[in-house]
Amino acid sequence: MALLERAQALQAAGRDILHLEVGEPDFPCPAPIMAAAGTALERGDTRYTPAAGLPALREAIARDYRERLGAPVSAEQVVVTPGASGALQLVMTALLNPGDEALLCDPGYPCNRQFVTLAGGVPKPLPLDVADQFRLSREKLAQYWGTATRLAMVASPDNPTGNRVDTAELSAMADWCAQQGGTLVVDEIYQGLCYGAPADTVLRHGDRAVVINSFSKYFGMTGWRLGWLVAPREMVSAVERLAQNWFLAPATVAQHAALAAFDEETLLIAEQRRQLLDRRRTLLLEALPALGLPVVGGAEGAFYLYLDVSRHTDDSFAFCRDLLEKAGVALTPGLDFGAGHDPHRYLRLAYTCDEDRLREALRRLADYLEAR
Amino acid sequence: MALLERAQALQAAGRDILHLEVGEPDFPCPAPIMAAAGTALERGDTRYTPAAGLPALREAIARDYRERLGAPVSAEQVVVTPGASGALQLVMTALLNPGDEALLCDPGYPCNRQFVTLAGGVPKPLPLDVADQFRLSREKLAQYWGTATRLAMVASPDNPTGNRVDTAELSAMADWCAQQGGTLVVDEIYQGLCYGAPADTVLRHGDRAVVINSFSKYFGMTGWRLGWLVAPREMVSAVERLAQNWFLAPATVAQHAALAAFDEETLLIAEQRRQLLDRRRTLLLEALPALGLPVVGGAEGAFYLYLDVSRHTDDSFAFCRDLLEKAGVALTPGLDFGAGHDPHRYLRLAYTCDEDRLREALRRLADYLEAR
Repeated sequence: MALLERAQALQAAGRDILHLEVGEPDFPCPAPIMAAAGTALERGDTRYTPAAGLPALREAIARDYRERLGAPVSAEQVVVTPGASGALQLVMTALLNPGDEALLCDPGYPCNRQFVTLAGGVPKPLPLDVADQFRLSREKLAQYWGTATRLAMVASPDNPTGNRVDTAELSAMADWCAQQGGTLVVDEIYQGLCYGAPADTVLRHGDRAVVINSFSKYFGMTGWRLGWLVAPREMVSAVERLAQNWFLAPATVAQHAALAAFDEETLLIAEQRRQLLDRRRTLLLEALPALGLPVVGGAEGAFYLYLDVSRHTDDSFAFCRDLLEKAGVALTPGLDFGAGHDPHRYLRLAYTCDEDRLREALRRLADYLEAR
Repeated sequence: MALLERAQALQAAGRDILHLEVGEPDFPCPAPIMAAAGTALERGDTRYTPAAGLPALREAIARDYRERLGAPVSAEQVVVTPGASGALQLVMTALLNPGDEALLCDPGYPCNRQFVTLAGGVPKPLPLDVADQFRLSREKLAQYWGTATRLAMVASPDNPTGNRVDTAELSAMADWCAQQGGTLVVDEIYQGLCYGAPADTVLRHGDRAVVINSFSKYFGMTGWRLGWLVAPREMVSAVERLAQNWFLAPATVAQHAALAAFDEETLLIAEQRRQLLDRRRTLLLEALPALGLPVVGGAEGAFYLYLDVSRHTDDSFAFCRDLLEKAGVALTPGLDFGAGHDPHRYLRLAYTCDEDRLREALRRLADYLEAR
């Protein structure tokens, strides 16, 4: 956050800052989604919806699981939420009692800790090994699962590594957690953003996992703040009651807009964007190792690369700060993603700007490293 | 909730149900707000905003306090939130540590309890006396304030009674709470909906209270899910960090739409609606006592009347259920607003439908009571 604010301050002062720290793609919201929002506005459709979302949207999401992803999900298992953030709050609070422990992959999305704490739970890092490319395995999960553990959380594709975990393997982990009396929560918010393999879901193999998802990343709906969760049937009514109390309902126009997310035209736009992201990724994967910045983790999804900067520094935070000041390139230090994985060796690059800007960033990085 | 679901089920089955249980006015979102939303859509303005909201909206809210309400509020004190619900979550969590007690007026808005619990706090009813028309006083506050109490919450105008508390008196209570090392949280979400007196705010008299507000009720923006809080300067950065972690940001198009809320044209529409609500209120205040349904509480604001039904029943929940089944009139039993104020004597009527429907409801009520 300190670096983000500094990057914004430098830009406000007139510096040209290359923003490779931003977790929001540079694409506009797809036209069919915007058109659906416009139609909802014209109809004046701005009143409260049910707490779990418009029935038509819950059904559209479930149908997409069934028809596009091949997973037997029904509308009653889907709860629409104010962003994946709202889904995380509901899931953590529904699954954790005060004092219960939650295992969070380290490296991983930093806000997960806050939702565990909000629920009265105790966040425990699940430190992953760089030797396994920071990939979660059943062995690793079992090694850290303790008597007070009630849930474990994993993202696939993952932030910051771009790792994918095989969905059959994920489902087996979910079954194992259920056998321990716990739950595996799978964050699939980067689901559509896969390279070299089609989009997939753990729900294709079973119904024990609780899934978090969002319209933000693949469907380009960041500022609309709309996400969803899929839960086993017996959990849904408790989640719905919590949603009613805390949120009343997700935003109405956003829900009508999202009804267009699964249209053929929108999916085509999303696919084109995925291909653009893949080109950016390829460009970077070719150039970065030559700068002495090897990529760790799979880089198979999302729009992040996790880089080992240890050839140049033993303090990636100081490196990021210095790079920002001297070269105007903003990156995210490893410390943002957990303290348990030797974070001072790493930083995250988000390829959320176009290829020209990425090439400029590579040039500035090369110059900076040469002068260092 | 059970009654609400039953009312919806009866309606879905073809019954004509008079919905006097709904806390959402029947007016559409004002045209200037819808137009501003449309303009934001045309500009493609749908990306993340800062966590505390668009700087222009924070400033517009602060300016409205200064210019229309005469309260010295600055933009830095304002945090825009996903509904008043988001503001409640932030405020409760910022002010309460686990085990801290929060006094909640009884009768009062039922979800407040849930936010206290979510924050790890202990909700304590502050049972108000019907002899005082369920109005909070300094004496009452001091009587219930204990060593573990960290905050008290009061709404003005209030749900379910429509009570207003004098703002100078509220400010004195806020100072008193501060002297005890605690905080008074004032829910002003019905601020503009006052009858017989202009809209007012506790912030006109001091800056010790934390204020919750919303675009939902007065500005007719329910489904947009947008609210705000005003806090003392030293509290804001902590609140902003929590908002960043939990919500990322409030919804973008909603914020652009809300920029039009303080336009002269919008304020004129809001004022016309307030007058319509006042006519409905007058109609009901004239008719209900003759049915043996006296109004308790001030009925000076919001769009609720709290009725004493004890001449007809000693169980207002059973009464509401029976009235719904036999007469198709949906009301809210007192139990929804707390257990500490003898709730079985009371029920809430929301005048959120037009005068013709209200007259029909009065007719059905009269017939039902006669046949009972």
